[in-house]
Amino acid sequence: MNRNEAFNLAASALGLDPNADLRIGGNYTSLLQEDHLIYISGQIPRIGDVVMVTGRVGEEVSVAEAQRAAEICVMRALTLSLQHLGDLDKLKRVLRMNVYVQSANGFTQQSEVADGASNLLRKILGEAGVHTRTSVGVFQLPKNAAVEIDMVIALHRSAPA
Amino acid sequence: MNRNEAFNLAASALGLDPNADLRIGGNYTSLLQEDHLIYISGQIPRIGDVVMVTGRVGEEVSVAEAQRAAEICVMRALTLSLQHLGDLDKLKRVLRMNVYVQSANGFTQQSEVADGASNLLRKILGEAGVHTRTSVGVFQLPKNAAVEIDMVIALHRSAPA
Amino acid sequence: MNRNEAFNLAASALGLDPNADLRIGGNYTSLLQEDHLIYISGQIPRIGDVVMVTGRVGEEVSVAEAQRAAEICVMRALTLSLQHLGDLDKLKRVLRMNVYVQSANGFTQQSEVADGASNLLRKILGEAGVHTRTSVGVFQLPKNAAVEIDMVIALHRSAPA
Repeated sequence: MNRNEAFNLAASALGLDPNADLRIGGNYTSLLQEDHLIYISGQIPRIGDVVMVTGRVGEEVSVAEAQRAAEICVMRALTLSLQHLGDLDKLKRVLRMNVYVQSANGFTQQSEVADGASNLLRKILGEAGVHTRTSVGVFQLPKNAAVEIDMVIALHRSAPA
Repeated sequence: MNRNEAFNLAASALGLDPNADLRIGGNYTSLLQEDHLIYISGQIPRIGDVVMVTGRVGEEVSVAEAQRAAEICVMRALTLSLQHLGDLDKLKRVLRMNVYVQSANGFTQQSEVADGASNLLRKILGEAGVHTRTSVGVFQLPKNAAVEIDMVIALHRSAPA
Repeated sequence: MNRNEAFNLAASALGLDPNADLRIGGNYTSLLQEDHLIYISGQIPRIGDVVMVTGRVGEEVSVAEAQRAAEICVMRALTLSLQHLGDLDKLKRVLRMNVYVQSANGFTQQSEVADGASNLLRKILGEAGVHTRTSVGVFQLPKNAAVEIDMVIALHRSAPA
């Protein structure tokens, strides 16, 4: 199974439309390419207009639910990448992923939540999905999202500028 | 109106001195250039020695006040860029902006606060000000600042190294 | 005293083993190099299997203890860099450091905590250790760590790809 097939399979499993328009109109944007790097804005686990997983992790939200939230964030980042590039094989390596977990007082399993994102990246992209990462527990996230994720991804040099 | 004029106008409106020395002396620095990228340290809404907007957003600080705080942070970043480059036309694109909002429990409008920063970047820099962004709600910020913002900006290749 | 000697001296002072294996096995990794930049995952103040400084800074953890936590995080980042490069002289410049401080309600000295990290970087690396930085106070950190730090570092062009 190649990357694009693995992506489609994961999208189906999570109920995501790979052709959904995730771009933001306005004074900021969801994805920018500079040279062979792409920067992806912070993604929350939104499908259509609905934020699928809201609340504090460790209180209203379980680790398993937060991992699913992290997976949706990753899929949004990959959807943006695919729509920008046309082919996930143009990705060389996910360089950095930041995982922000809206945490309950005393919740310390931010790494376990982030594993949901890391595992899915590896599953879809193989070695190219093995990234550096920072996971922290924040107090609040936009729209009460349980998780927010951003990334920097390197492209193969042959990718379009 | 060009960028430098728009910058000066915004500085006047916020009561900022474009010639103020915002550099930090010591073991870290406010701005670094590596190749054609500049990295800007986290900026809080300080004018001179005074942090202009302090407290938790959604409690002691309104969204409108937090947006003004975000604008001051942006202006500090642009002031540092201008003092480093001599001309804002050397900026090619703001690649990444991180917006940290010191949030009250239950406050979920971090994106709206960040819009204050995004709108001002676009207003001053035009298309070059359209960036990727991540907004999160943190528990505390240095000096009780309501907002902190950092950036990575790409320069035109002809800019001095 | 050169960088590598200064590193070893700081490691001894903090009780760190410069040869410890800090790499992560799995679906993310501790350090990645892309061109002449290295990205380092978020480091907590762990020595062996023990997180040395846990709890909220400003409550259970003093500023001095948090500064020591920050130093351990920096040493882990430098250990990873040294093990990757074989020689700290290959580092050209620390471009960005993010310092996340697990903060008590009302604690506003995140910059002072981060100074522990900045001062040590400068001490070991000299001018190459003078970086841009962002310090924020988060609500929770993985494993109840008091501090978490990540970095992006530029290498001299002659460094191995």
